[in-house]
Amino acid sequence: MISRVLAADLRAHVGEQVTIAGWLHRRRELKSVTFLIVRDRSGLAQAVLSSSPVRPDSPTAGLPEETVVAVTGTVVANEQAPGGAELTGPTVTALSGPATPPPFDLYRPAVTAGLPTILDHAPTTLRHPVLRAGFEIAAASVAGFRTALDGLDFTEVHTPKIVESATESGANVFGLDYFGRPAYLAQSPQFYKQALVGVFERVFEVGPVFRAEPHDTARHLAEYTSLDAEFGFIADHHDVMAVLRDAIAGMAAGVAGRASGALELLELKPPVVPDQIPEIHFAEAQELIAARAGWDPRGEPDLAPEDERWLGDWALREHGSEFLFVTGYPMAKRPFYTHPDPARPAYSNSFDLIFRGLELVTGGQRLHRHADYLAALAERGEDPGSYASYLQVFEHGMPPHGGFAIGLERWTARLTGAANVRQVTLFPRDLHRLSP
Amino acid sequence: MISRVLAADLRAHVGEQVTIAGWLHRRRELKSVTFLIVRDRSGLAQAVLSSSPVRPDSPTAGLPEETVVAVTGTVVANEQAPGGAELTGPTVTALSGPATPPPFDLYRPAVTAGLPTILDHAPTTLRHPVLRAGFEIAAASVAGFRTALDGLDFTEVHTPKIVESATESGANVFGLDYFGRPAYLAQSPQFYKQALVGVFERVFEVGPVFRAEPHDTARHLAEYTSLDAEFGFIADHHDVMAVLRDAIAGMAAGVAGRASGALELLELKPPVVPDQIPEIHFAEAQELIAARAGWDPRGEPDLAPEDERWLGDWALREHGSEFLFVTGYPMAKRPFYTHPDPARPAYSNSFDLIFRGLELVTGGQRLHRHADYLAALAERGEDPGSYASYLQVFEHGMPPHGGFAIGLERWTARLTGAANVRQVTLFPRDLHRLSP
Repeated sequence: MISRVLAADLRAHVGEQVTIAGWLHRRRELKSVTFLIVRDRSGLAQAVLSSSPVRPDSPTAGLPEETVVAVTGTVVANEQAPGGAELTGPTVTALSGPATPPPFDLYRPAVTAGLPTILDHAPTTLRHPVLRAGFEIAAASVAGFRTALDGLDFTEVHTPKIVESATESGANVFGLDYFGRPAYLAQSPQFYKQALVGVFERVFEVGPVFRAEPHDTARHLAEYTSLDAEFGFIADHHDVMAVLRDAIAGMAAGVAGRASGALELLELKPPVVPDQIPEIHFAEAQELIAARAGWDPRGEPDLAPEDERWLGDWALREHGSEFLFVTGYPMAKRPFYTHPDPARPAYSNSFDLIFRGLELVTGGQRLHRHADYLAALAERGEDPGSYASYLQVFEHGMPPHGGFAIGLERWTARLTGAANVRQVTLFPRDLHRLSP
Repeated sequence: MISRVLAADLRAHVGEQVTIAGWLHRRRELKSVTFLIVRDRSGLAQAVLSSSPVRPDSPTAGLPEETVVAVTGTVVANEQAPGGAELTGPTVTALSGPATPPPFDLYRPAVTAGLPTILDHAPTTLRHPVLRAGFEIAAASVAGFRTALDGLDFTEVHTPKIVESATESGANVFGLDYFGRPAYLAQSPQFYKQALVGVFERVFEVGPVFRAEPHDTARHLAEYTSLDAEFGFIADHHDVMAVLRDAIAGMAAGVAGRASGALELLELKPPVVPDQIPEIHFAEAQELIAARAGWDPRGEPDLAPEDERWLGDWALREHGSEFLFVTGYPMAKRPFYTHPDPARPAYSNSFDLIFRGLELVTGGQRLHRHADYLAALAERGEDPGSYASYLQVFEHGMPPHGGFAIGLERWTARLTGAANVRQVTLFPRDLHRLSP
């Protein structure tokens, strides 16, 4: 390994001769002194050259920004320098060829390029600390999700993404040629995670899901990362909501603990997840909106975006919570595997979690008896033969179970305030974009 | 949540009335007593009914094995029972409908079905404790891999699986229709993980990779889980080997710590990973085989399976190690992005890790200078235009870097001694199999 000290650790080496290595973030040339800012995974470090940069034998001649360098010098404390120390009397070695300038200046504190430029040149533009910070928050969220579910005795699984049947949901699917046969990319691990409740009782998966969405909006992606969980021996959907609350709290804790630098840079605080997230029934939510919001959603089988926003504001006002569970969505708008509310069968044992006025998670209790599946498919006029592979598991004994799915990019966008989910997606795929 | 005690915790509740819940693993009916074995995620528990099972009002009448039940009774210590305690005077409630019998008896200690039956009915057959154990080992391995790389300051990423170009390697790819344009399923995250070295320095990914392998062997899958790592600021491939050693040691520790029950059931010990895995150069390995093995592989550009087996035996004999690094494979058989050995440019700064006589991991140092990529592609007669999206990152400054990829299923198969990698793959995909 190249022997070096990380930028963040420089302060601990005052008086020593050390090497730092990273990208030449910024070269600032004054009349008789040149400041080099080097960026590594831990942050920024400064080196000071007392040579004239215009001389061709200057150690930085021909080294544009983004060139990868190793800089060896003596560490001197300096409160003005990033991290409180800097390298003096340095020698500079280029580890890459001289870099071509990036599409915008990565050293400026703000991102000065628009989204198309950022995405077209993502391998380079994501180096900007502000853009990178979103992905640190995403990674910390996933780590926190895993820690939470691991603590609840869940087993992590990886289920196939090439599937035989396109029948799972109404969403559009990508088709592919599978050794001469038609196959599809999985829209979700729904069927597999349910089957695996029969094996492990409690499972989660972090993996890609694919939607051939013909919508060109700030929220839709053709491929995204789904945090899925499913587990058995529940009484009803409230048990699923309790686990989801712990998962979200784990994600918030992961961000606070592992991405504090990113939060600071973006001037964000992680959300506070209440011990008990407030809850309102779908029908009650519609009544409330009709009585107080100035429009009447009653009779609609689903909530509109403006309903969700209003409810998000209401929850913050009434309960001091950025999170709100809406339960009991009408069965008519939920997938066929949804468990009805035994007391009011037109409503379901399902829920959405609204975060800052936007639906973040959908989940609920599923059917678990084979006969109930046959009845549900018959009622929707669907052929059980298309679901043969899925239905077999319910013939062999399945407990009451349920689960949920969190879209990682949507969560990260809400957390960072990104207006477009693409900004917090590593190499997004959409109707128009397949590269880089 | 259904209020219950797990089977493994029963012993701690002697004298109390508790409920256990799980699958009716076995119903054993003697003349005037019935034993029920209930299986939950923690193991097995026994309940004893002093009723005659043939009476139609017996609590177990009409409840075949695999029916999901809740059993409430008084816990009595019994050294003969699994876990050292059993439930007496129980009442039994079915939580699922009566189960259809599985394709083979899941309660028998050995798996009595062949692989096709196991795979055709995987959602049910994987409930067998012996089959399930392989997946517990896989999950524990992944957890250990993450812990190891997390400790080395790696960032976890999720990169796109739908890609624009099929040019990455010689492997066969799956094509798909992407909103009217051709696209492909990623054979590996190679290009993306390299690009992300520019953003995070050290990245890893656990995700699916896709190979349209027309081979119908015990080792090939069309989709598998790849544990990928890539990182910068290396001196050469030996730094990559050092991180891989720690990753493998983490996986072994994960298995020992988190899947001890599975190891015990399968009568396995996790492998011992030496602090320093022995290493032999490709050319030296061929000389050794020529001198001692009875055949002469010299002149071949790659190792044959019998070479790997012989070297595996040799490493165990000479170094007491189940692991062996073979370094310096000829450039001719390595991908174009491989870094040559500066001292002997016909050989590469790459390696394979052989585990128990089989190649488990491939890795190495990659090229990092833009000009070197152009030269490497020109030498192979390839059009750099096909790699435009990949090559742009090397124009903007990349450090010396390298990485590796571990096939999860292959690792698990070697660990468990599974003759066929499909046995340790959740719902395998191959030339003939696309379901369940």
